[in-house]
Amino acid sequence: MKNISILGASGSIGSQSIEILNNNRDKFTLDAISVGENIDYLRKILSLFTPKLVCVKNKNHFDILKSEYPNIRFTYGLEGLFEISTFPSTHTVINGLVGNIGLMPTIHAIENGKNIALANKETIVTAGHIINEKIKKHNVKLIPVDSEHSAIFQCLNGENKKDINKLILTASGGCFRDKTREEIKNVTVEEALKHPNWSMGAKITIDSTTMANKGLEVIEAHFLFDIPYENINVIIHKESIIHSMIEFKDTTIMAQMGMPDMKNPIQYALTYPDRIFNKDFSPLDFGKITSLNFSPVDFNRYPCVKMAFDAGKLGGSATTVFNSANEEAVKLFLERKIPFLSIETLIYETLNSHSVIKNPSLDEILNIDRETRNFVINLYKTIKATH
Amino acid sequence: MKNISILGASGSIGSQSIEILNNNRDKFTLDAISVGENIDYLRKILSLFTPKLVCVKNKNHFDILKSEYPNIRFTYGLEGLFEISTFPSTHTVINGLVGNIGLMPTIHAIENGKNIALANKETIVTAGHIINEKIKKHNVKLIPVDSEHSAIFQCLNGENKKDINKLILTASGGCFRDKTREEIKNVTVEEALKHPNWSMGAKITIDSTTMANKGLEVIEAHFLFDIPYENINVIIHKESIIHSMIEFKDTTIMAQMGMPDMKNPIQYALTYPDRIFNKDFSPLDFGKITSLNFSPVDFNRYPCVKMAFDAGKLGGSATTVFNSANEEAVKLFLERKIPFLSIETLIYETLNSHSVIKNPSLDEILNIDRETRNFVINLYKTIKATH
Repeated sequence: MKNISILGASGSIGSQSIEILNNNRDKFTLDAISVGENIDYLRKILSLFTPKLVCVKNKNHFDILKSEYPNIRFTYGLEGLFEISTFPSTHTVINGLVGNIGLMPTIHAIENGKNIALANKETIVTAGHIINEKIKKHNVKLIPVDSEHSAIFQCLNGENKKDINKLILTASGGCFRDKTREEIKNVTVEEALKHPNWSMGAKITIDSTTMANKGLEVIEAHFLFDIPYENINVIIHKESIIHSMIEFKDTTIMAQMGMPDMKNPIQYALTYPDRIFNKDFSPLDFGKITSLNFSPVDFNRYPCVKMAFDAGKLGGSATTVFNSANEEAVKLFLERKIPFLSIETLIYETLNSHSVIKNPSLDEILNIDRETRNFVINLYKTIKATH
Repeated sequence: MKNISILGASGSIGSQSIEILNNNRDKFTLDAISVGENIDYLRKILSLFTPKLVCVKNKNHFDILKSEYPNIRFTYGLEGLFEISTFPSTHTVINGLVGNIGLMPTIHAIENGKNIALANKETIVTAGHIINEKIKKHNVKLIPVDSEHSAIFQCLNGENKKDINKLILTASGGCFRDKTREEIKNVTVEEALKHPNWSMGAKITIDSTTMANKGLEVIEAHFLFDIPYENINVIIHKESIIHSMIEFKDTTIMAQMGMPDMKNPIQYALTYPDRIFNKDFSPLDFGKITSLNFSPVDFNRYPCVKMAFDAGKLGGSATTVFNSANEEAVKLFLERKIPFLSIETLIYETLNSHSVIKNPSLDEILNIDRETRNFVINLYKTIKATH
């Protein structure tokens, strides 16, 4: 029996994690969970599970829930998140938080000897150098939940890192893959939220459309697998069946494949190194999937990928800036304040104005994050004012 | 430094093995080799290497070579093959013999504690139950050299056999893949020898065209990986880029990919568990390989696959009969004595007339092999006489 805690239990990763735990009650116990403001979904979870600790975002919900569930202990706010991520009996913490908020709970979890099933890529993108150090020091396992990194992680099973030639991350190309930049100038939020293959949260769906997501994954892969950026490739694979690959020194490519279903890498992160049957998973049917296609990524069509590589190679605080600028820009788009392509422009301008700090500390990272967000908002206001 | 010996050094697998050893002189020593009658190629090998023992097929060549190379020890015949396969300092024996002749040397090698890089699938197909027992008893490694089984072997790296759902063997479909049975009725030997993707020996190229080869591989996979026939699938994959796959319990598929080049699995069998760079190997270029295609195998189009599954499920001596009947039938076709489709008919009739012996001993296997060959030849003569 493995004891699991979930950060962000009402999100896309969190709710799919709940489904997996619910399908495998003989294997997992739900220790502690955090949710943001989706109290209705929390109530649904509490009809299925009785976790020992529940964290909500604000005091108001905390007060309501405390009297509603007298048998469950509640907590709230950032301190509450830390309590969830360090819950004593927990073996693995699933970090399904979205955005930079995921960083500090990951750090706390590692420092308390927890294994991490990590979906929150911002943790690695902004503080990969610090996380890697702490993982080593506290001897915990960090297992990626992202389908691409889970695929790479699986392709590395039984292999030696030193034999890697390159990582090949596959990308669906997002829902506007077959459109030109001219054609996507005026797309609506609704149009941008239709992902062809994966069912994911709003922010990550937009990131998939701009391919900023793939950019973040490139940076994440660099840190997770200790591979130079020069040895990381991205290719468009519109079917999202091959989730990523490793080319080894002897030119052998190992690929991990399956139907696009986030529950699969989530479950693997929990059962690793074992694999278990799950009645909800659909096997690939080569009678239906008769063709897998590949094409190169055009950096002009997808400047976010190029910017991510550039930021990664610059290193230090540049990846934090890429990530924070992207988060703020996507927020502005989702709030219908900027057109789709301005996401890229805002990131570009922000990265351009940043002076890189080498090996930033956690404090510096958090500072840069704040400054970057302010910079993006001010940039937006300036542009708006001049129109 | 690993000491290697090669059975069948002048064949397709043998000569490619020689190339690999020649490219990696810092890693391998060539201990002992056998060749059949290709003495010219043997001389070429001896201009590159000075093995400690060389076996030829017949006494005549033995006498000539002894005086030609006074510094090299020679031997000949079946006893000579046994000497090669048990050469004292050898770590791994590459068995690149073609046909049933490969069986006894493999047994001798295992009994003498040698690891086997096995290309001779007849060894496993006819005596899989005996080989598996001996491998366990003598605690040696048998690493498949066939691209399909090497792929499965690699997909199993770091995984647990108990988590396998099914094996998916890929098949090019051979050079007549896009033709109907009607269209291949009168094909010539030359036409049948043109394999679209792989450069291999004549017998195996014909086997690839009838897909008897895939049938043998199904049986081999059953024994090598201890998987029931019901859990082995074959799919047509015309590009031969994915060399085979495993579907695990959690529906994850691991696939091993690369350019079709037998040198790759041969080298892997020698370097396992490491992988090494080889300047002769071409990496996959997804700029060129833009599409991978799959289609089901039609058992009516390729009856040899169905017959192999049937023989495998019958078990015991049936797989020996399938293999020996196929060998003789292919020989008759290559000698231009029977039309292409009669290969299948001869195998079918022979299998149909056989009474299966459960758990045959080595002696019984060798007997059945002889009887089967005689049966096929007599069948051919009878048919010929009645025409």
